[in-house]
Formats: sequence, C-alpha cells, structure tokens
Amino acid sequence: MSSKPSIPKGTRDFSTEEIQRREYIFDTIKKIFRLYGYQPIETPAMENLDTLLGKYGEEGDKLLFKILNSGDYLSNATDADLESRDVVKLSSKICEKGLRYDLTVPFARFVTQHRNEIIFPFKRYQIQPVWRADRPQKGRYREFFQCDVDVIGSDSLLNEYELLKITDEIFFNLGLSIIIKINNRKILAGITEYIGENSKITDITVAIDKIEKIGIAAVNNELRERELSEVAIEKLQPILLLKGSNEEKLSFIETLFAQSEIGMKGVEELKTIFGYVATAEMKAAIELDLTLARGLNYYTGVIIEVKSADVEIGSICGGGRYDNLTGVFGMGGVSGVGVSFGADRIYDVMKQAGKFSDIETASSQVLVVNFGGQSIQYALKIVESLRKLSIKSELYPDAAKLKKQLAYADSKKIPHIIMAGDDEISKNAMTIKNMTSGEQEVVLFENLPSYSDTFNR
Amino acid sequence: MSSKPSIPKGTRDFSTEEIQRREYIFDTIKKIFRLYGYQPIETPAMENLDTLLGKYGEEGDKLLFKILNSGDYLSNATDADLESRDVVKLSSKICEKGLRYDLTVPFARFVTQHRNEIIFPFKRYQIQPVWRADRPQKGRYREFFQCDVDVIGSDSLLNEYELLKITDEIFFNLGLSIIIKINNRKILAGITEYIGENSKITDITVAIDKIEKIGIAAVNNELRERELSEVAIEKLQPILLLKGSNEEKLSFIETLFAQSEIGMKGVEELKTIFGYVATAEMKAAIELDLTLARGLNYYTGVIIEVKSADVEIGSICGGGRYDNLTGVFGMGGVSGVGVSFGADRIYDVMKQAGKFSDIETASSQVLVVNFGGQSIQYALKIVESLRKLSIKSELYPDAAKLKKQLAYADSKKIPHIIMAGDDEISKNAMTIKNMTSGEQEVVLFENLPSYSDTFNR
Repeated sequence: MSSKPSIPKGTRDFSTEEIQRREYIFDTIKKIFRLYGYQPIETPAMENLDTLLGKYGEEGDKLLFKILNSGDYLSNATDADLESRDVVKLSSKICEKGLRYDLTVPFARFVTQHRNEIIFPFKRYQIQPVWRADRPQKGRYREFFQCDVDVIGSDSLLNEYELLKITDEIFFNLGLSIIIKINNRKILAGITEYIGENSKITDITVAIDKIEKIGIAAVNNELRERELSEVAIEKLQPILLLKGSNEEKLSFIETLFAQSEIGMKGVEELKTIFGYVATAEMKAAIELDLTLARGLNYYTGVIIEVKSADVEIGSICGGGRYDNLTGVFGMGGVSGVGVSFGADRIYDVMKQAGKFSDIETASSQVLVVNFGGQSIQYALKIVESLRKLSIKSELYPDAAKLKKQLAYADSKKIPHIIMAGDDEISKNAMTIKNMTSGEQEVVLFENLPSYSDTFNR
Repeated sequence: MSSKPSIPKGTRDFSTEEIQRREYIFDTIKKIFRLYGYQPIETPAMENLDTLLGKYGEEGDKLLFKILNSGDYLSNATDADLESRDVVKLSSKICEKGLRYDLTVPFARFVTQHRNEIIFPFKRYQIQPVWRADRPQKGRYREFFQCDVDVIGSDSLLNEYELLKITDEIFFNLGLSIIIKINNRKILAGITEYIGENSKITDITVAIDKIEKIGIAAVNNELRERELSEVAIEKLQPILLLKGSNEEKLSFIETLFAQSEIGMKGVEELKTIFGYVATAEMKAAIELDLTLARGLNYYTGVIIEVKSADVEIGSICGGGRYDNLTGVFGMGGVSGVGVSFGADRIYDVMKQAGKFSDIETASSQVLVVNFGGQSIQYALKIVESLRKLSIKSELYPDAAKLKKQLAYADSKKIPHIIMAGDDEISKNAMTIKNMTSGEQEVVLFENLPSYSDTFNR
C-alpha cells in the first residue's frame, strides 16, 4: 500500500493541543461531578445487540455500528437468509455485538445487572466515547464523547435542582455564558389534555419542539398534517405565544389545568424547583420554555436543555427525569434523572468564543542541547537533575547542528534551552537561554535548583 | 426482554473503585511521560481495514473486530460471494472498518498521514483501549488499555536509554519491583550468522523465546523440527546456557561475532546503552537475555521486556527499536523506538501485591441528612457552603428515616455526617458527627469553614 493512509469519515485524530483542551473540559466537568458526590463508572465499548436494539427507535437501530462475529460468522445464516438479501434480518445472524450509541442505555443495563451491589440512590457519572453511523457534517461526528451524570433510585426534586446547579457551575467554570431552558413532560401532557388531544402527545411535542427553528406558522401546518383539530390548534395558540417571567407563565398555564391532574403536577414540580433555585446563587438564567419537548421518549418529568448565549450551535447539554429506564431490562419502579454534556460541542463553542487561550501547554520547559561526544554524559546529568526538580525537559537525542536544535525548541514552543560545551563543562556550569527574550546567563551546576521557578513560570 | 442483561464475553464494567485505581496508574504513567517531554495524541477507535489488515500476521487478521458497513452492506457482495460462504473474502465486501488492535499501527498511520505537521524527532504517548477477538481467559480481555510511548525520527541510542529510565521510574513510582530484560535483534541476527543458519532467523527466535517456559531440551527439539542442522544446534548451546553479568555475556558473545558485522553492531549498541545506564541511578536490574526475541517482526534493534519481580504474570511492559514502521504506508527511512505498558496486567500485579491500599476514594466527605419540610432550605445552605469550600459533599435527596440515611453514609464510606433539625436551625448551628469515632459536636454555621481541614483529612 503506498497511497496516503486515512481514517474513516466522521472520525478524528487528536493533536496534543486538542487533547489538552479536551482534558481541561473533562477535568472541569469531573471535578464538579465529584464535588456533588457523584462517582464514576465505565462500561465496555461493545454491548450485546439485544441490549441496544429497539432502544433508540427505528432510526437509531439503523445508526448502530454492528460488529461482525468472529470466526465463521455465516454459520447461523441459512442459504435462504443469504439469498433473501434482507440486510436487517441477516445482520441479526452475523452480528451479536454493537458499539455503544449513548451512555444512558448502557447505564440502565449496568444498574439492572449490578443491582445487588449498588447502593441506592445511585449517583454516577460516566465520560466515554459513543459511536453513531450518522451522516457526518460540521459539528457532527461518528465518534464523540458524552459526559453523563445521573441519580437513580430517588424521586426527590432536589435531584433536579442539584443537576441544574451542577450545570450552572460547570459552564461558569468553563467561562461560557448559557441559557438553561426547562419544561416538564407532565405539563406537555397537561396541554394535550387541555386541548383535547391526549392521544396525539408525541405528534404535538415533535411539532412544537421545532418552533424556534421553523416558526409558529410552520408548526401549525405540521399540526394540521398530523391531523389535529382546528379547535385544538386554536386552543394551543396562546400557549405557544406565551411571554413573560417563569412565574407569569406558570400562573397562566395553571389556570388552564383545572381539569388536568398531570398538568397541575407538572406545574407544582416546577414551582418546587424554582423555589430551590430562588435561594441559590446561580449564574445562568433558567427559562421556562413550554415548547421544549426533547426527542427521547423515555423522559417523564422535568426536562432541560442548555444553549450557548454566545455561539449559535444547538443544544450543548440536556437531560431530564425518566421514571422507568430499567424497566426494559426487567427492573421496574426505579426513577432517575440525569443530564448529558456534549463535550465535542462544548469544545467547539469554547474554541469559537476564544476561551482556550490560557491553557497550559504540555511542552517541555527546557531543551538541553546535544553537542555529542563526551559532553553527552554531562548533558544527561543536567536533564536528569531537571526532571528530579519536576521540570518537564528533554535532551535533544542527536548531535545535530545547533541551528536545527534551536529550530526544534522554537517550533515546539519550549521556552528555555540549556547549552553545555567544553567551556561550560570545565567550569561545572551551563548556559541557560530564555528563548523569548533571547537573554542568556552562565549558571553553576550546583545553582540549577534555584532556577526551578524560572522554568516553571 | 426480561432475562438479566449481560455484556459481551471478555469485556468488563468498571466500578468506581476500579476506575480510581486505573486512573492512578494512568496518571502516574502520564506524569512521567510528560516529564520526559512526550506529548499525547489520540486516534479513532475505528480504522479503515486496509490500515489494519496484514500488519499483525495471519493470526492477527483473524482477531480483528470488523464493523459491518452501514445501510445496504450487501450491495458490493455478488450472489457468488454469498454462495461461496468464503468468510474472509465476504468480510472484505461487507466491512470497511475495524477496531484498533494496538496503538503501534495507528501511530504509524498517524505519522504518515500528518507527516507535514509533525516536528521530528516526534515524541508522543498514547493511552487508549484496544480490542482483540482473543479467546478470553484469566488476565486476558477483549477490550484492554495500552499506554504507548515512542520517539520516531531519531537513530540515537539516547532514546533507548531514556525509555529504560522512563520504564524504571514508572514502576518505581507505582511501587512495583521489576526486572528489565534487554536484547538486540542485531545480536540475534549475529547468532544466526555465527551458527550458519541466516535464513532461519524467525524459526530460531520463535523457538528460543520460549526457553523460560518450556526449557532447553524442548527448545532444541523445536529447533530440530524447524530443520536446523545438528551442527547449528550444537553451536547454539553455549549461547543458550550463558550465565554471568551483562558485561561477561557481551564479552563472550563478542568473541563469536568476528565474522558478523551485524552481531558486532548489536553488541556495540548495548555497550553504549549500558554506558549511559552506568552513570544513572536506576532502581531496577537490567538483565541481558540473549534468548529474548519478542514476537513482533517489525523490531530491528534493541528490544526490552519487563517482568514483575513479585507476581508471576508474564510481561507487563515491552518494546524496542523498529527501523521502518511507516514503510508499509509509503513513508520510508524513519526509525523509531517505543515501549508499551500493559495497564490491565499492571493493575492485576498491583492488586495481587497489595499496592492499592493508599489510594484516596472518590466518596463524598460529608453527607448532610435530609429531615424534610422547611429544614431542606437550611440543609441546602449547608451543602452549598461545603461545596464552596471544595469539600465533596451531598444532601440525601429524600427525607428518609435517619437510620436509612446513616446506613447509606456507612456503605459509601462517607466519613462525616451533618444533621440540622429544628433545634440546630433555631440556633443557626448544626451537629457534625464523625462516622468512625462516633464523636459529634454542635457547630455554629459561621464556624463551618474552620472544619475544612477536618473534612478533608
């Protein structure tokens, strides 16, 4: 093979600079998860397909990366299976495993599988890559990281409040301005009861979720296409057009829910949460958005979504309450609530908003020049002394021309170089040069430790 | 689905404790890589199959996890392909991608692909999982982490020496006693020249590599099976039986290599490296082992392998010099040397050797008890103050019975609890209880900051 090698579309190589920036995001997120008492778990990249299939809708099933069985993978496929060319059916005969599509389903599987070892309420976080066979486009990758935080086994709305606090604190620590949108699936259910279209809750939420993107007229058209009555659409208008503070919105909608128990429950839940929020110092605005629905059908209570206030990029974080995530694995009655941070989009926002300038680079602080011959032993002593002082440093491995070695230090942004030729060696000394200012001085070997601060600055 | 869910064989879920221990290993390794001026890169989990196939031998090709193409994956497969049931040929029609099998080949692909952006000598490290469809057994997993460190684009033996230092320092920092075995592929080539069997170098290295496991008699039998002459086997015996210090071994073998230029080159290289080592403070013993061969055929110079001195488990780290790793991707003339640390085996050794006892747990330091009702606002103030003081802490989310909340703190090894009922609230105070000693005291809210050290102890 002699053509230039490449990587699969939608995947990425990461340079040192990108990794450091990503680590900064992960470390900030992790630190706050831990501050709030959440603990990490990890699950395998591969899950059995029967764990994954049917959990993300028909479209999701198609986007799963399936792994071909090892060995004679055709042994379970009949001639008829092959002849039919039914790719869905055949894949179930030749693939048993798939790559993780998100962290939520593996978490539900984990909780069910390990239920006897887990202490409930179970507060866990998980930061791992996921894979989706989506069509790659700007900002959408086939391999990307999710950072999920969930508490499972507690109905308390303190959990919702805590996750709002965590969200607020993480983005504040990352230096990003955000808007947190909040709603409640129970309020959406209340609205459908109020307009007399209970059975169409999915159609309604799918349509109104798009209002920001496509506008109210297009939403109404879509509702008509989905066969909502004109009366229902009419009754929905004041809700879609509702403006005001969170309290004003809640008061208005409360008046509509006289006949809707579930709607009232949703209003009460939000009131409780807003009550907690009122006593806290939060940096971000929390905005009740009655059109927020979130696509995933497993949500049953409060839902949230975070948008950048500075950069137009869609949601960078989202989550909500789910009452029966583990039910599909045969473990019922466990309610949970969680939020997922999209590390790759957060990265893109931070880059666009210029928030990465201050991050320390992993470059060595000192390059010791290699003059070859007997001087190498002396140079080795220097670089070993530096490392003992915890100073990231390297000895240029080859006795190349000084110009080449300096160019290396320059391109790698190494701020200091040390040179020790015969002259310095005879005095048990070295020349330390600051690559930025160009200043240099001769320093005795024994005085090297006093330069630690200079190198680490 | 109601049967208990499971994960694919050979894969693992990781608990919080396991993750913390693994992070401790990764952090120790990373810190030292960085101290020596190595910088991280990352590559995608999936590579194109034409990058991976043919790089690990026929056996390796079989152990690759292949990913089924998305959509109509049969579109390139003819009826004849399907009828033939030739699984190797068919897989090339239905799979374009595979999971990373190691970090070396993706690194070679990375260097070739990004050669114009890379500054040589290129010192990189990479810590990522790899996947192999090996038969799972004790200590062997289908998903495991490798920690690779390589420098590419420099012939200097200072690199080999530096990697020995790094290896020594990492295991010392992890608290593990090790033996570093070293050899040189050039010496192995010299030996085959000396015994007059140049063409059989692979047969010879494969056989003698097993001497520790199967003994010298079995090795000789295997050499006979591989059709080495009796004269050659006879000449090999003193080498296989050679004892003594590294210097003694080198002197002896040097006398045999009068006619072998490559053998002499190998001896000289090791002498240079031992010269560097002699001036350094190294903790581990470095032992010249003339039977060390290492399986991978891309090695061309110095090779090393690390064994635990305490636990019987095979090699926990290994590597060597390769002169043409990127040649297969069309980029010639680039020599490199690298070492790979097996994080999962290191984990197993540390666990067996009891080296994990001191690692800090991620548990919260304080649990604030939830007494429900109006007291929640006060409890929230407490837990928020604690977090502002950087104390990992949590408020129990439900107003459960005190006994249940204490049991939760106990099972999660949370060392302190704080209780604030009506009595404490009226005094603007709280009761702080040490869960280990059982001691408790009433503390004014304003004095909470002075307890930071207590909680963090």
